[in-house]
Amino acid sequence: MKIVTDHNELHAARHLLPRTVGFVPTMGFLHAGHISLVKAARGECKSVVASIFVNPTQFGPNEDLAKYPRDLPRDLALLETSGVDLVWTPSAEVMYPSGYQTWVDVESLTRRLEGDIRPGHFRGVTTVVTQMFIAVAPDKAYFGQKDAQQTAVVRRMTKDLDFPIEIVVCPTVREKDGLAMSSRNVYLNPKEREAATVLFRALSVAKVAFDSGEHKAKKLCSLVSAMIANEPLAHLQYVSCADYDTLDELVTVRGKALLSIAVFMGKTRLIDNIVFG
Amino acid sequence: MKIVTDHNELHAARHLLPRTVGFVPTMGFLHAGHISLVKAARGECKSVVASIFVNPTQFGPNEDLAKYPRDLPRDLALLETSGVDLVWTPSAEVMYPSGYQTWVDVESLTRRLEGDIRPGHFRGVTTVVTQMFIAVAPDKAYFGQKDAQQTAVVRRMTKDLDFPIEIVVCPTVREKDGLAMSSRNVYLNPKEREAATVLFRALSVAKVAFDSGEHKAKKLCSLVSAMIANEPLAHLQYVSCADYDTLDELVTVRGKALLSIAVFMGKTRLIDNIVFG
Repeated sequence: MKIVTDHNELHAARHLLPRTVGFVPTMGFLHAGHISLVKAARGECKSVVASIFVNPTQFGPNEDLAKYPRDLPRDLALLETSGVDLVWTPSAEVMYPSGYQTWVDVESLTRRLEGDIRPGHFRGVTTVVTQMFIAVAPDKAYFGQKDAQQTAVVRRMTKDLDFPIEIVVCPTVREKDGLAMSSRNVYLNPKEREAATVLFRALSVAKVAFDSGEHKAKKLCSLVSAMIANEPLAHLQYVSCADYDTLDELVTVRGKALLSIAVFMGKTRLIDNIVFG
Repeated sequence: MKIVTDHNELHAARHLLPRTVGFVPTMGFLHAGHISLVKAARGECKSVVASIFVNPTQFGPNEDLAKYPRDLPRDLALLETSGVDLVWTPSAEVMYPSGYQTWVDVESLTRRLEGDIRPGHFRGVTTVVTQMFIAVAPDKAYFGQKDAQQTAVVRRMTKDLDFPIEIVVCPTVREKDGLAMSSRNVYLNPKEREAATVLFRALSVAKVAFDSGEHKAKKLCSLVSAMIANEPLAHLQYVSCADYDTLDELVTVRGKALLSIAVFMGKTRLIDNIVFG
């Protein structure tokens, strides 16, 4: 496994890789969710490139950039074991050199849900993903369904800018008790960790109702919020039932839809979702 | 010479072209300035791709999109004669399909001069150039010095997004009497056309002064504005003496600098510039 930092090294190493090339962008502190993306890429592509970059521009001024968990040696060992061919670990100076001033913005999709609560977050995501798509020039790129809005935004951006890249969205990987894997789970204390299972339990109740014929968005959302309200350590920030592609809020679920939630467990903010249809 | 419209045709034709590939993006209604870009590309690259697309997103609501001059058959004949291999003539629907919402914005450089007067103009330029750079994937791209701020913005964007593309800026091509070639010159009536030589005459006076040792920006600008003021049909909108790369206004010209002007001749707005250093 080759490890590169700057663009020249990356371009030189990338051009030696046989195609097709699969790309897994990450912010490091890898868990089984990330590794599932690598394995999907490994199964579908001749070469696999991963990046590790804690992208400062997708953190808000009051967010956790400084204390975002990092463990590069462990990450590199995991990627090597998982069969990655090339790892790109750029510095912030490589991605945003002095005088940097170019931003990629997906408008409508990023002005709701996570984007409404975290203004500027998705502009940071789409800007760094654009840079990485140009630099890595993969055939396929792999994202986790857990960050559902991010996948919708990246799919739209890829289509709008006509990147010749297939976006592959992989299922959310969960702990045995249903909690979605997230680098931020390390922030939970034991009681919060135990209570955090309420996210998936609440979504599962809605799924059972949907499968039993309940297709009214309002009803599905109220099942989720009632369940979260029963957990004293949890505080629901939003619950949304929206079109899978446009993220427009629905009245009735007909096509593919996304039921998504953001929940505070103490100071830690968790997100999760399930897909209908 | 092959002519393509949609992305699939473009990708198929592009992959057959031997590298290096030179790219000349245009809005059509070609003149000798455009052809000089094609010839530069022809001289430096194995293959030459040109695009003709009157990009709606770089026109403001009160600008001349509908009446922007067009002559596709003539343009195609000129490009074929000049040795272009592949011409891309996308429709607005190809570049901005239903639901389009992704924008590329270069911040600081576009908030002054042309960008200050034409808000949103450069966002349209950088968005369409990004789309075209991704789709055409050239090794070199050719722009005219006449649109000086555009070249600074595109150079910055290319650097920031790390496109592996060399931006080549070619000298302004002028009519015999000094008027810079522009598709918009057709809007001038005969008296305005004659008077329009004042732009280059004014810039030339400043150049002579600079070459004689006058390096104070204010003095160079006032030589230009005095000369424009002497022409009754001309109305100066701005004169600027700025750093060539950052477009920061200068007190004293030391390194490479740009002296640029925007002038109304009747209802027609013309721009021109010269480079010092």
